[in-house]
Amino acid sequence: MRNWILPEYISDVLPSEARQIEALRRKVLDLFACYGYEQVAPPLIEYVESLFTQDDSALDLKTFKLVDELTGRQMGLRADITPQVARIDAHILNRQGVTRLCYAGSVVNTRPDGVLSTREPRQIGAEIYGCAGVAADVEAVELMFAALALAGLSEPRLDIGHIGLFDALADAANLQGNQRAEVFAAIQQKDVATIQETTAGIPADLQAGLLLLPTFYGSSEVLAHARAKLPQLPRVLAALDSLELLTLALQLRGIVAHFDLSELRSSYYHTGLVFAAYAKGFTNAVARGGRYDSVGEKFGRSRPATGFSMDLREFSALPFPSLRAGILAPSGDDAALRLAIHELRDAGEIVMIDLGVVASEVSIDRMLSLQDGRWQLVPIVKV
Amino acid sequence: MRNWILPEYISDVLPSEARQIEALRRKVLDLFACYGYEQVAPPLIEYVESLFTQDDSALDLKTFKLVDELTGRQMGLRADITPQVARIDAHILNRQGVTRLCYAGSVVNTRPDGVLSTREPRQIGAEIYGCAGVAADVEAVELMFAALALAGLSEPRLDIGHIGLFDALADAANLQGNQRAEVFAAIQQKDVATIQETTAGIPADLQAGLLLLPTFYGSSEVLAHARAKLPQLPRVLAALDSLELLTLALQLRGIVAHFDLSELRSSYYHTGLVFAAYAKGFTNAVARGGRYDSVGEKFGRSRPATGFSMDLREFSALPFPSLRAGILAPSGDDAALRLAIHELRDAGEIVMIDLGVVASEVSIDRMLSLQDGRWQLVPIVKV
Repeated sequence: MRNWILPEYISDVLPSEARQIEALRRKVLDLFACYGYEQVAPPLIEYVESLFTQDDSALDLKTFKLVDELTGRQMGLRADITPQVARIDAHILNRQGVTRLCYAGSVVNTRPDGVLSTREPRQIGAEIYGCAGVAADVEAVELMFAALALAGLSEPRLDIGHIGLFDALADAANLQGNQRAEVFAAIQQKDVATIQETTAGIPADLQAGLLLLPTFYGSSEVLAHARAKLPQLPRVLAALDSLELLTLALQLRGIVAHFDLSELRSSYYHTGLVFAAYAKGFTNAVARGGRYDSVGEKFGRSRPATGFSMDLREFSALPFPSLRAGILAPSGDDAALRLAIHELRDAGEIVMIDLGVVASEVSIDRMLSLQDGRWQLVPIVKV
Repeated sequence: MRNWILPEYISDVLPSEARQIEALRRKVLDLFACYGYEQVAPPLIEYVESLFTQDDSALDLKTFKLVDELTGRQMGLRADITPQVARIDAHILNRQGVTRLCYAGSVVNTRPDGVLSTREPRQIGAEIYGCAGVAADVEAVELMFAALALAGLSEPRLDIGHIGLFDALADAANLQGNQRAEVFAAIQQKDVATIQETTAGIPADLQAGLLLLPTFYGSSEVLAHARAKLPQLPRVLAALDSLELLTLALQLRGIVAHFDLSELRSSYYHTGLVFAAYAKGFTNAVARGGRYDSVGEKFGRSRPATGFSMDLREFSALPFPSLRAGILAPSGDDAALRLAIHELRDAGEIVMIDLGVVASEVSIDRMLSLQDGRWQLVPIVKV
């Protein structure tokens, strides 16, 4: 009867971690608000067909299914929030113009992403709908870095990619279905032999381009190499242009970009620029984002979109401000006592009524004591 | 392909409601912190056997089931948080002494409680473990009223009951199983005929007592009536004593209690004092709580416990502070411009970069403009 055992990769958030997460959650949401982002909170469960923005088997596999007793239809417990926010932008708000939305909430995955991952990340993120220009991506990356700074990460590493490079080459080579998926996977894995094998028979310049993608990683010289060596297709050039524009704008903001042009998407629905931040001591990316311009199409409205998200639980090992010490007050109905307690709490003090031995992470260093007919704070000296 | 339709009794929280919920959530959690409550955040999913504190078919029916792919075991999507907090107190923290815990998070129900209810309440609550005295219940009710005041409800109505009255009479009459459940349900429904029928054959004074329970509702004279007319069993007297102590202490705190001694539990696991707050314009109770002393037993540790919870979404129709107006700033890399934006945001202003027509609930009344070589705030005059 060990019924207190939690499922694997599922855990409680206990007081000290909860305090950290709550503090960071508030700071990041306040930051988003200062940039003009409006908070939304989509539901935890929806009909499955609403939870994925396209035929997205990877997200489908990550999503727990449950049955709606009211209708018999299949619902899902959300494994991501972005498709929900896209639905809200497309169908519920349906505003004309640039819309900035943000959110904070749990998502649940059927399987963990890795052995050190949780199945219930506390996702927090920000998204811009209705702006196709690189200026929106610059804002997304700048905001991501500002959020990471609040989490205590002052100099994370930024990796940038662009899924448009692969798409342009694959479309030109008319790669479709399984073959396209195999090439895509091989490039992600930097598996040159498999890229060669799966692209056999396509025009030589396109095959060469696809084979080169995994070699384009490193500092800013990568962009010049790519421009010199990749087939000069209009969409290839457009992708390289936007990578260059983003890099320059970030440089002026003190953010140095690294490139990995085979890192093709940080999630399932990305379509253009993709980016991720990494930091020392963290196994996984500490934040991820990118373009997902077609994301609202399924909900009847295709708008440009860019944004990022991170998991608040990732940062719980970082040092955070320690807890204020508290005051112990006797239990009782005396009006003057209650007034004194009320005033201390109003002033932001933690006042605990004495209901027996206190078991708390709050250390108690003062007590309310009736002296000379007045309730006064008296230090508690630990022996 | 109307895939934006949400399941019944499930809805998005859009910007203005999200702002209200976020503001209230923070104020209530800060209030809890000032009383010495430590926040915990149990997971959304657990193995089903952990989610109920006893054979609790009502809570079981409210809980969505899903299958853990990693183990094949059945999990549940939590329909309540209190049993989880009890598990944390009993098994994870396992502290000696009085432990105050609080939480804020979504719960999901298979069916709505009523036609005006949501299937995803945003539950926020506070709980005291390890204190059997009425002083803990006084604190719980006082805290509940303070939280409701933050939500804008200054004078809710308080109803108090005590499940110990029914339990004492039913135990003395040796009512068990189905019969006990039927009597219990009939008393809750104040259905005198059914109480009479289902208690046929038990000692006359106990039957009379059970028949009287539904008549004990109203103001403080109810307690005197109950004391005069109910069988003088020790547990009946103890229950009446604690009702009286609680009432007196609350009176001194300016809280007037009403009684409904047939309102036997506000949730499934309650064992003693139960209470609920009602307010004009609200169909459901705006907050509920009570004693659940045996709640941790299943997790290996039976401790006294009392507490309350409320649904943050219930209050979204109440007026809340309106949104600050924002500032529009041109997009661009100019260092002086970026510094000006940074300083304004640091001062708490909402500054939106101009990425095209702004579509936001934030009204924009100023813009950053380069005048005389300096970035300055200029009012926007609406025509």
